[in-house]
Amino acid sequence: MNQALLRHPRFVSLEGGEGAGKTTAINAIRDLLRAQGHEVVLTREPGGTPLAERIRGLVLTPDAEIAGEPLSPEAELLLVFAARAQHVRQVIRPALQRGAFVVSDRFTDSSYAYQGAGRGLDPQWIADLEKRAVGLQPGLTLLLDVDVAVGRARANGRDLWPDRIETEQDDFFQRVRAQFRQRAQNDPQRFSLIDASQDQAGVAAQVRGAVSHWLEQERVHE
Amino acid sequence: MNQALLRHPRFVSLEGGEGAGKTTAINAIRDLLRAQGHEVVLTREPGGTPLAERIRGLVLTPDAEIAGEPLSPEAELLLVFAARAQHVRQVIRPALQRGAFVVSDRFTDSSYAYQGAGRGLDPQWIADLEKRAVGLQPGLTLLLDVDVAVGRARANGRDLWPDRIETEQDDFFQRVRAQFRQRAQNDPQRFSLIDASQDQAGVAAQVRGAVSHWLEQERVHE
Repeated sequence: MNQALLRHPRFVSLEGGEGAGKTTAINAIRDLLRAQGHEVVLTREPGGTPLAERIRGLVLTPDAEIAGEPLSPEAELLLVFAARAQHVRQVIRPALQRGAFVVSDRFTDSSYAYQGAGRGLDPQWIADLEKRAVGLQPGLTLLLDVDVAVGRARANGRDLWPDRIETEQDDFFQRVRAQFRQRAQNDPQRFSLIDASQDQAGVAAQVRGAVSHWLEQERVHE
Repeated sequence: MNQALLRHPRFVSLEGGEGAGKTTAINAIRDLLRAQGHEVVLTREPGGTPLAERIRGLVLTPDAEIAGEPLSPEAELLLVFAARAQHVRQVIRPALQRGAFVVSDRFTDSSYAYQGAGRGLDPQWIADLEKRAVGLQPGLTLLLDVDVAVGRARANGRDLWPDRIETEQDDFFQRVRAQFRQRAQNDPQRFSLIDASQDQAGVAAQVRGAVSHWLEQERVHE
């Protein structure tokens, strides 16, 4: 069993809370990379494969819709990592191996933020699952950071049917944001912090700048 | 987070390969305990709650039926433990707390046998998941042991539509059986080995004998 954690230079993840503008950011990255002639695979978590999308349904469906059965934090974590193991094996690794860039809307950092800081599960457990079931880290992670209240106001304007995690309280999302920021601070080589309080054009411009800078540094475009 | 592993005296699990006669054994235990006036909750794994049964569907459905996507060993293990975390929290603990006996068709030993020995996953990982996501062991585990060829012949006569695990090859089931026997040998206080090569009446008689002996020793009937 592979327990190494490898960072791949063509693997990019987007992280951030609700209403941070990840879709705008992903489209900006896709356009920039395709303009340079690269194959780009856009994907998302939890999900990204037929089976993982089924698992996503179990994680995000409000409890009341699954016979009123609350999903325990431990089961939530294990389901998210089961989906991630499938996602890496079926989609991400094959794409990287054929030379494509992979851009994922969320990846393992979300587990540290939502299941770790949000639900209070042991980060050591998450680190162990990351090594045993995933084995792969992005070379670049864009953290779209925005005040919780601002992000939620944006998300509320969009989501008529909030999912199970979106119905959490503000203190949950404050812990999630603080954890994302802490992880970015601890790992400046991988993370790029984007001020997501700006409008869509401003976020897209920052994202293009961060990705261009990273491509130059990493020379992954050669 | 509770990382202790507690053994509960009113929690009984049944383990064994395909065609070992677990249904006959479970009915014998139920009848014996009910005749003594106990509440008995019969349950099964993977499954036992609405959500866990949905996870069971993902684990046991043949790959070809989920868009031809093979389930990785790591995802299989994590799904089984996600289901088990729900099962313990929603069904097993509440039943034990109100004084009932719980009899489960399979429990964590099956993960050591099928995902550990069968799929080749690290037993240390399984032990860590057992502590972090389950925290509970049966006080009595009946291992219905039968030669792989005999068990499979029985199962084949019954299953028109074999599930994903039943379609494995004989060497897989040899490893599963060897692991079950090894675990029973290492933990004689919890395990009772049942010769499941006998007919249904013979298996039922052995099971009744083992449970009666255990009740006397544990005095859990008082």
